[in-house]
Amino acid sequence: MPFAPFDWIDDEARRRADAGLVRTLRPRGAEPELLDLASNDYLGLTRHPEVTAAAAGAARRWGAGATGSRLVTGSTELHAELERELAAFCGFEAALVLSSGYAANLAALTALSGRGSLIVSDAGNHASIVDGCRLSRAETAVAPHADPDAVAKTLRGHEGRALVVTDSVFSVDGDAAPLPGLADVCRSANAALIVDDAHGLGVLGEGGRGALAAVDLAGDEGVVATLTLSKSLGSQGGAVLGPARVVEHLVNTARTFIFDTGLAPAAAGGALGALGVLRREPDRAASARGVATALHARLTAAGLTAARPDAAVVSVRAPSADAAVRWAADCRTAGIAVGCFRPPSVPDGISRLRLTARADLTEEQITAAVATIAATAPQEAFAPVG
Amino acid sequence: MPFAPFDWIDDEARRRADAGLVRTLRPRGAEPELLDLASNDYLGLTRHPEVTAAAAGAARRWGAGATGSRLVTGSTELHAELERELAAFCGFEAALVLSSGYAANLAALTALSGRGSLIVSDAGNHASIVDGCRLSRAETAVAPHADPDAVAKTLRGHEGRALVVTDSVFSVDGDAAPLPGLADVCRSANAALIVDDAHGLGVLGEGGRGALAAVDLAGDEGVVATLTLSKSLGSQGGAVLGPARVVEHLVNTARTFIFDTGLAPAAAGGALGALGVLRREPDRAASARGVATALHARLTAAGLTAARPDAAVVSVRAPSADAAVRWAADCRTAGIAVGCFRPPSVPDGISRLRLTARADLTEEQITAAVATIAATAPQEAFAPVG
Repeated sequence: MPFAPFDWIDDEARRRADAGLVRTLRPRGAEPELLDLASNDYLGLTRHPEVTAAAAGAARRWGAGATGSRLVTGSTELHAELERELAAFCGFEAALVLSSGYAANLAALTALSGRGSLIVSDAGNHASIVDGCRLSRAETAVAPHADPDAVAKTLRGHEGRALVVTDSVFSVDGDAAPLPGLADVCRSANAALIVDDAHGLGVLGEGGRGALAAVDLAGDEGVVATLTLSKSLGSQGGAVLGPARVVEHLVNTARTFIFDTGLAPAAAGGALGALGVLRREPDRAASARGVATALHARLTAAGLTAARPDAAVVSVRAPSADAAVRWAADCRTAGIAVGCFRPPSVPDGISRLRLTARADLTEEQITAAVATIAATAPQEAFAPVG
Repeated sequence: MPFAPFDWIDDEARRRADAGLVRTLRPRGAEPELLDLASNDYLGLTRHPEVTAAAAGAARRWGAGATGSRLVTGSTELHAELERELAAFCGFEAALVLSSGYAANLAALTALSGRGSLIVSDAGNHASIVDGCRLSRAETAVAPHADPDAVAKTLRGHEGRALVVTDSVFSVDGDAAPLPGLADVCRSANAALIVDDAHGLGVLGEGGRGALAAVDLAGDEGVVATLTLSKSLGSQGGAVLGPARVVEHLVNTARTFIFDTGLAPAAAGGALGALGVLRREPDRAASARGVATALHARLTAAGLTAARPDAAVVSVRAPSADAAVRWAADCRTAGIAVGCFRPPSVPDGISRLRLTARADLTEEQITAAVATIAATAPQEAFAPVG
């Protein structure tokens, strides 16, 4: 037998090419050349001088890396400060910082469930939640999207530990989860509620305190939030927020916390810097929501099919994966960066342009972006008339 | 029913306390107060001025975060440069950088296996490999530690895709995997070989090019390496190295790559800075190995039971988890930071002190460290006489 353990990869690559689903990396330069409606830098803080200075200063003061697991040499006073600040800002008792939001979801889901547990997971949840469920060894039931009654029905009759997990704002369509309804269901069923607030932090709630603060569920004894530091906070990393005993439990049992190197000081410092700006300029959150509302209204007025945004993500339907790729490419040629979501990154097989509403987009930029997106749209993207 | 979804956590906390297995975070200050034999900063580069300057400069130039998935806005020319440098340094065709070594292992294992595949995984492999196997939906067979014959037997008769995965240097005892033997077995069985070189990069091979370069397997068409940027390279992040088609396949299919924010520029910059230092000062690798050999020889001469180090990890047996914790605490009181590995972080239930041999430890520091470790050792840690 000839030695060819990776030949199957070529077959898969051909199938992807035939289906128009090839993804390629397109490295960008240091200076933005396009109007950015594609990143998750919702508050425009990634390149904020105070945030980059905080990141750079932390690298110089604390070193380029954390040097080990948080349980060995990787915990610094900088991590502790970030954890205190995150918990206080979002209204939780305690916080634990990990190297990514992905790691935070894996940590929370595996450490808080386990064999014999039931996890009820929204059908639209992010890949990191899906992977957390897979890793958990719990029984996972996928509930219809944003449907507390269906969650209640699924929980009924389960003996033993149960938890419900949902994104606060769904990444693909930008819609919000029915958090109060889910919390009521959890309370009745004695189930924990885990909410991934990746797209809510910095955008929802008073001053950007997040989706849970917005509905008065932050700090609830049965609620755990997972966060990312890489979207509104413009940095890298993730966190789990909740009761102190939950955080202590994660420190002792969460594999993606115990067996991973601590977050780099520059990332912790950058996130702290961004929190400082957000505390001082709380209007950034409302600005992001306002830009999203404006984008949605104008795209819809232009005849395109866009989901009503509950936060800062505006999703526009494309007729096909191929058409979405061409549309995004044409936007790029015209100077506008937009996201393009295709299978397998969409839960329903429908391809989309995905726009993010940055708080610092100007009226002029919004107008230009909508004009370009409408002018480059494929004919089938416009809603049928009459 | 009272609402108490996390009460079970208190029971588990009590059980941990009774077993002497409580873990607590101990944040450190910015300036080292202890002699560090606990971190994974093998080459002493985390606080190297060139490395911290590279990290700080990258944050200022590129922003505090990557702003999105590598497939949307998160790929910069800095990431591309780091990927070219890593591939060239280690002798592989291509490289892909992820946000952590944990994410790199999850990516490689899930994307290169799948339903119907067989993964043969060494019993001593790191948690991130174990989790990658669990996530992969492949059949996983755990092979006895460092035993190519057992791996060959396990592969025999399997139809379809197969891969063998191993750490290059095992984190707990510091022993090396039998890579040439495993590669022969893979070649006979048409299986891919995935090697996590977290503890080999920077320490093994000419100039620290890693465990695969050391045995002339770097760049082999059937071999994939996973790396971390957070140990010898003093930063944060991970990478997968292999044939270009493997990297393209990961770009298209690896969930922890596609659905994660790109590595922060400061971390990419720091790792690039460290690679630059290592290229200019290739003797650092041999220095780390020399320090490890010296530590082992002197600890053994003092009557302690230490595994012979194949790289820069020196593991010393402790009589119990409790004793290991007290021993490490006594070392700390005496000014020396050592790692303490207890269940569930050890594959065999045996607790250990874990020492890392930094390339820049001086003769004086080695002498002081050994004297302290021997003086604080519990009586049962000494090998029986006669």
